[in-house]
Amino acid sequence: MSADWSIDGRAEVLAIRNRIREVVEYMKFELCPGKELIELTLGDPTCCGILPPHPDVLKAVSDSVLSGLHNGYKMSKGSEEARQALADKYSSPGSVLSPDDVYLTHGCSGAIQFAFQALLSPGQNVLTPRPGFSVYNTMCSSLQIENRLYRLDPARTYEADLTDLESKIDSNTGAIVVNNPSNPCGSVYSHQHLMDILTLAEKYRLPIIADEVYGNMTYSGNKFYQLGSISESVPVLSCSSLAKIWLVPGWRLGWLVIHNKKGILRQSVYDSFNKLSTLTLGPCSLIQGALPKILSVPQSWHDDVTRHIECTALTCYNSLQKAPGLTPIKPQGAMYIMIEIDFSKFPDIPNISEFVQLLCKETSVKLMPGSCFETNTAIRIVTVDKKEKMQEACDRICEFCSNHFKP
Amino acid sequence: MSADWSIDGRAEVLAIRNRIREVVEYMKFELCPGKELIELTLGDPTCCGILPPHPDVLKAVSDSVLSGLHNGYKMSKGSEEARQALADKYSSPGSVLSPDDVYLTHGCSGAIQFAFQALLSPGQNVLTPRPGFSVYNTMCSSLQIENRLYRLDPARTYEADLTDLESKIDSNTGAIVVNNPSNPCGSVYSHQHLMDILTLAEKYRLPIIADEVYGNMTYSGNKFYQLGSISESVPVLSCSSLAKIWLVPGWRLGWLVIHNKKGILRQSVYDSFNKLSTLTLGPCSLIQGALPKILSVPQSWHDDVTRHIECTALTCYNSLQKAPGLTPIKPQGAMYIMIEIDFSKFPDIPNISEFVQLLCKETSVKLMPGSCFETNTAIRIVTVDKKEKMQEACDRICEFCSNHFKP
Repeated sequence: MSADWSIDGRAEVLAIRNRIREVVEYMKFELCPGKELIELTLGDPTCCGILPPHPDVLKAVSDSVLSGLHNGYKMSKGSEEARQALADKYSSPGSVLSPDDVYLTHGCSGAIQFAFQALLSPGQNVLTPRPGFSVYNTMCSSLQIENRLYRLDPARTYEADLTDLESKIDSNTGAIVVNNPSNPCGSVYSHQHLMDILTLAEKYRLPIIADEVYGNMTYSGNKFYQLGSISESVPVLSCSSLAKIWLVPGWRLGWLVIHNKKGILRQSVYDSFNKLSTLTLGPCSLIQGALPKILSVPQSWHDDVTRHIECTALTCYNSLQKAPGLTPIKPQGAMYIMIEIDFSKFPDIPNISEFVQLLCKETSVKLMPGSCFETNTAIRIVTVDKKEKMQEACDRICEFCSNHFKP
Repeated sequence: MSADWSIDGRAEVLAIRNRIREVVEYMKFELCPGKELIELTLGDPTCCGILPPHPDVLKAVSDSVLSGLHNGYKMSKGSEEARQALADKYSSPGSVLSPDDVYLTHGCSGAIQFAFQALLSPGQNVLTPRPGFSVYNTMCSSLQIENRLYRLDPARTYEADLTDLESKIDSNTGAIVVNNPSNPCGSVYSHQHLMDILTLAEKYRLPIIADEVYGNMTYSGNKFYQLGSISESVPVLSCSSLAKIWLVPGWRLGWLVIHNKKGILRQSVYDSFNKLSTLTLGPCSLIQGALPKILSVPQSWHDDVTRHIECTALTCYNSLQKAPGLTPIKPQGAMYIMIEIDFSKFPDIPNISEFVQLLCKETSVKLMPGSCFETNTAIRIVTVDKKEKMQEACDRICEFCSNHFKP
């Protein structure tokens, strides 16, 4: 009877795309025999083995485990203590937050998912940056929302092209995503640029979903402004997590913070987040229990981590200036550098996938193709590893480019 | 400009219902002055404070934290080691599983969400038990799937009424949910009854979503049969987690195990789970790292926990026989007892909500109304606390019923 019984997956689910995970988990890379792999694809600061979390953080979680106090269910939206600690951390004189403005989520991806689900109906569009983090597209593909891309300008260290952004807005637009500091661009926006974006959002009455997971991870001369703090009226849903700033992406503890000074987001929006929270009941209670202590890590430790990454990032930036056909864009923060490729100079390499695969085959350096970030003319390098190793990677990339460059 | 700018939540999101969370987090209960609260609402074995996890489990997670090996991203569907450990645990001679049959999820709720999303399109219906766990309805309300209820028969310790079940199947039915052992019913199905359900599923070519989160938690004389092991052809998606059997519901580590002996579920179904896994990238890495050790807790420890719960549950069952107007249904497993109420004997209590609220106001005993489980004629008691405390709760319930009973 069951011979002709078969069940297929649903087209809507199969349409979900996470391009980073497709590369990291499924793309085949050949290595160059005799050359040690240098793996620079995944934005996971733990991979390099030289950036451990602060010891107090590990102790706080271990204490949370051994206390026996955090094994049970927490509130769906996260424990009061954890949300209070986040409200305190993200409050500013002009924007005082309460625990009711905070929702704990499964990583920053979970916060982005909540924001998209609460604000956007199927068939609507959300404006997201190009180049931009792959998860925006993942959520759009999952929720039947149109991922409408606005241009970031590499000539202006990937500031938003406001003319292009404005031209993409229509009556079906439900929100603008601003990612600052940016993955994959490594850009950090000036106060003025953020104000310009806010002005545009106010003009069209669009709320902003701010992906601020790289928060204060900014290099010398660049300052991070929390969009929700500087917005006078535009509602800002800020998404973040422990992943990058605390160097523990696997822990999957993220949060959504609502900045809503003028009350433009009605109670029903908060109700929506409450409802979404009841689906799978928030992140691991052990980490929630440790959160107040985790958030108390001294800023000087964070600064040291960022200084290390800055040093590595600038090493890459400087080295890759010498690679023919490549234009590295100077990074200002986060843990990435983007390098624009002039494919007209590489006639034997047809596209970005071939570029990263051939690079790996000939040099054992693995990078992320820009196609993960909606651009087919750039590569992204993760800049967290030892300076010497990064230098070696850049040298190999330069040699690869020299070998394939046709002026 | 922003004076008349307002943003409301989306109706589809606001339609999400989690009736347990509505009671636990939002329902107002008055207490009886002078009587200590006895809280028996939430199916959280940690609340009573007398059922700690096995010390090896806490040590395994603490070791996982301090090792520094589990801070980074795991595979979207969970680490190979964790999935291998689960495949080993759930394999049986007739059903040998591989890590590719296992997906880690955000709790058992996350596994149920995955199963619903992968198998059911909006507008289809899924058959779920009445009384049944509230999360089935939560997922249906979130995914625009019809939650079509089939009757469990209290006179047969809540076995499925197969005639009713069959009558509810139509061309839009996508799956049957079987919850064994049952929350809220405390029932454990016999081998024969499970075979009868499988026969029906095969007849109509419907896959089964088996909520088996209470696994081996069965009382003397009752045996748990894993549905996927005894199914010859019907595909079974088994959902479970650490929550109940390991006494750590807050940790949010669940799993979906695919039993697909005849290959009826095509590769595209597995692809669907892979895609869904990339949305928020699986549960906390620290628990994943400890999972092989967690799963090795000796069965004798689990048996001791179950023995305690059985003793408490039977204490309740026996005591509540004396409550006029109530019919407790003998529990066989899990950590609940359901009590059917003859409302015709309580003319001054109009409905189930009033019943639990008045009970609390007069006795300080808090119970879960059956309305959380799709029935308006029963209450659920969680049976994990000390025997003496449960006896006290039952005595108060008996007194309450005597006071309000009108023969």
